[in-house]
Amino acid sequence: MIITLTTDFGASSPYVAALKGVILSINPQVQLVDISHTIPPQQIRLAAQVLANTTPLFPAGTIHVAVVDPGVGTSRDILYAEFGDQRYVCPDNGLLDRLADRHLPTKIICVNEAQYFRPQVAPTFHGRDIMAPVAGHLSLGLAPDLLGPRHETLVNLQWQEAEKMANRIEGEVVEVDSFGNLITNITRDMLADVPTDETVAIRCDDHETRSIFQTYGDQPAMTLVALIGSNDNLEIAIVDESATIMLGVGVGAPVEVSW
Amino acid sequence: MIITLTTDFGASSPYVAALKGVILSINPQVQLVDISHTIPPQQIRLAAQVLANTTPLFPAGTIHVAVVDPGVGTSRDILYAEFGDQRYVCPDNGLLDRLADRHLPTKIICVNEAQYFRPQVAPTFHGRDIMAPVAGHLSLGLAPDLLGPRHETLVNLQWQEAEKMANRIEGEVVEVDSFGNLITNITRDMLADVPTDETVAIRCDDHETRSIFQTYGDQPAMTLVALIGSNDNLEIAIVDESATIMLGVGVGAPVEVSW
Amino acid sequence: MIITLTTDFGASSPYVAALKGVILSINPQVQLVDISHTIPPQQIRLAAQVLANTTPLFPAGTIHVAVVDPGVGTSRDILYAEFGDQRYVCPDNGLLDRLADRHLPTKIICVNEAQYFRPQVAPTFHGRDIMAPVAGHLSLGLAPDLLGPRHETLVNLQWQEAEKMANRIEGEVVEVDSFGNLITNITRDMLADVPTDETVAIRCDDHETRSIFQTYGDQPAMTLVALIGSNDNLEIAIVDESATIMLGVGVGAPVEVSW
Repeated sequence: MIITLTTDFGASSPYVAALKGVILSINPQVQLVDISHTIPPQQIRLAAQVLANTTPLFPAGTIHVAVVDPGVGTSRDILYAEFGDQRYVCPDNGLLDRLADRHLPTKIICVNEAQYFRPQVAPTFHGRDIMAPVAGHLSLGLAPDLLGPRHETLVNLQWQEAEKMANRIEGEVVEVDSFGNLITNITRDMLADVPTDETVAIRCDDHETRSIFQTYGDQPAMTLVALIGSNDNLEIAIVDESATIMLGVGVGAPVEVSW
Repeated sequence: MIITLTTDFGASSPYVAALKGVILSINPQVQLVDISHTIPPQQIRLAAQVLANTTPLFPAGTIHVAVVDPGVGTSRDILYAEFGDQRYVCPDNGLLDRLADRHLPTKIICVNEAQYFRPQVAPTFHGRDIMAPVAGHLSLGLAPDLLGPRHETLVNLQWQEAEKMANRIEGEVVEVDSFGNLITNITRDMLADVPTDETVAIRCDDHETRSIFQTYGDQPAMTLVALIGSNDNLEIAIVDESATIMLGVGVGAPVEVSW
Repeated sequence: MIITLTTDFGASSPYVAALKGVILSINPQVQLVDISHTIPPQQIRLAAQVLANTTPLFPAGTIHVAVVDPGVGTSRDILYAEFGDQRYVCPDNGLLDRLADRHLPTKIICVNEAQYFRPQVAPTFHGRDIMAPVAGHLSLGLAPDLLGPRHETLVNLQWQEAEKMANRIEGEVVEVDSFGNLITNITRDMLADVPTDETVAIRCDDHETRSIFQTYGDQPAMTLVALIGSNDNLEIAIVDESATIMLGVGVGAPVEVSW
């Protein structure tokens, strides 16, 4: 059984080790996988994108624990949820909202049965004291329905969606990856009937390029290119360099595709 | 069997991979867990706090290897030690000192049987060549008494302890976590008979707040709050922000609680 | 079965999690080990050194996946290769060149059988869509010869080798480790008949020291020392400090040993 962890605790944080110690104390056979711990503090929106992009790649039945939890210790709920063949334990604050764009959840439970928590629950660390032990018990086969009552809705976030018009699409940069590539909210589907040759112009802030390429290596180093990235969104990149540094552009920058 | 690793090698360092390769070559079935590799170089004191806060959460019998070792290759000893139901392999330089505050060690061995080391021991990397293989052999069931002779004492560090007087406690910031929260050396026990309402004042450097809250989310964003953190020490935080950045305060800053 | 991962994706990157999800979906029993994800973007040369220093420490049969791949999606090959008792899956761009200095590869296969890839291959992420699934299938026992045809040569890189003359050796700094130690291309073998006492002078940029020591702790804090490091290369270090910061010297700085 696999349990993954996604947090804003920082790379190599001892708070992550605390989650792992608690889980392994309940089920020493579990295999732990780190998804990311470098979500910037309390950036629920970015964590929601990461969960949607990575968790569906895992084996059926994997349990994903996500602890980006600015409301820890307040009245926000902690949920168990199932999307497709994956399972999630996290606060109800929008972390599952990008998954919910693609699938309807097949089950949502409000986690409140304290017998599956640590005996003392610190009001500032529900990751260690509630979510980790609940995931440990689930990995041993605990029926999710024993965790608490059914729950019907999930907290939603507002997302800035790209907009398609007759001969252009208006969107924005929504993420910058570790290479400095600018990932936009313009999807492969929106671009399906758009030309990819020199008749298409892609403008990001006040920088412009033409054509939509297949990959970075298709053009010489230092070239500004647009391409459809590995998560099916339009990306703006500079071959062999960091676009965010060289263009001085980041999350929120406007992107327009016109033809 | 689980082996954890705590080092000052840096996140994602190939030196960590070297430890893992050596351990897995001896016992490919072992489960490896990273506690932290972002201990700042040679900060034994911080590593000792991390070991005391996280290692007791692991299953009984877990072996914790800690390599923060500025004296590598000199005459400092390498120890095997047992505290509670956990086991440790590390240099004798104070790394176990915070654990020793809470438990007496039940066994200490001076590790010197070279048959359990790598055949060539580099004088600059005892983590790879002595501690990792020793942990690997222990995970296969090696009796610790075969590693060398009994040892009676541990190197101690000097700690700046908080001091409690009639109507105030004087302490200091001892750690800054990845959220920028300021963790002090004032413990929950010291605060047991202190009021938590507006009659208590908490001063950190030249910043002051009143009341000791349960959690961050109890107050509006940007509020300076004091609370008892998840490791039972008084913390100074700014709701949804980094206190270390916003207050310009870090390790060593004076903290006073008065009532 | 163990699979290791070496990438330039950044510590705790979700792109790494994508590789892990794909591998575990094919073989949930595999044990995953991170070698390093903080290779600077597209620094094939540094990744080649890391692979040569760490991978031979792993159990026989371990599969090492290395994704430092600036040519992703272009015509560069993807290889399966065997060196000693270790196995590798990576692009043919020089990543295996430091291993090839020490061993002849016993088998090289050009990976092109798409039945072992993910059904959709994104031209920008062959790590996730080709290398990860191929490694997953190999870990289940797939015969490497089924991956594609034999391949005879590997892409070579140019390396700046140190040069030994009658009474001096000229080399340079080739790596700076996480402690700020300056690792040179002057090997233990080159130094075999060189004196280690005060009659030898070691000059790095315009800084000079005498004697080659056994370890950092042999000298007082803040002392500039030369020693043979744990990977058998001459290192320049400052006891208890970062040599790269204190000397203002990094990769490429000239180093001369004379006697």
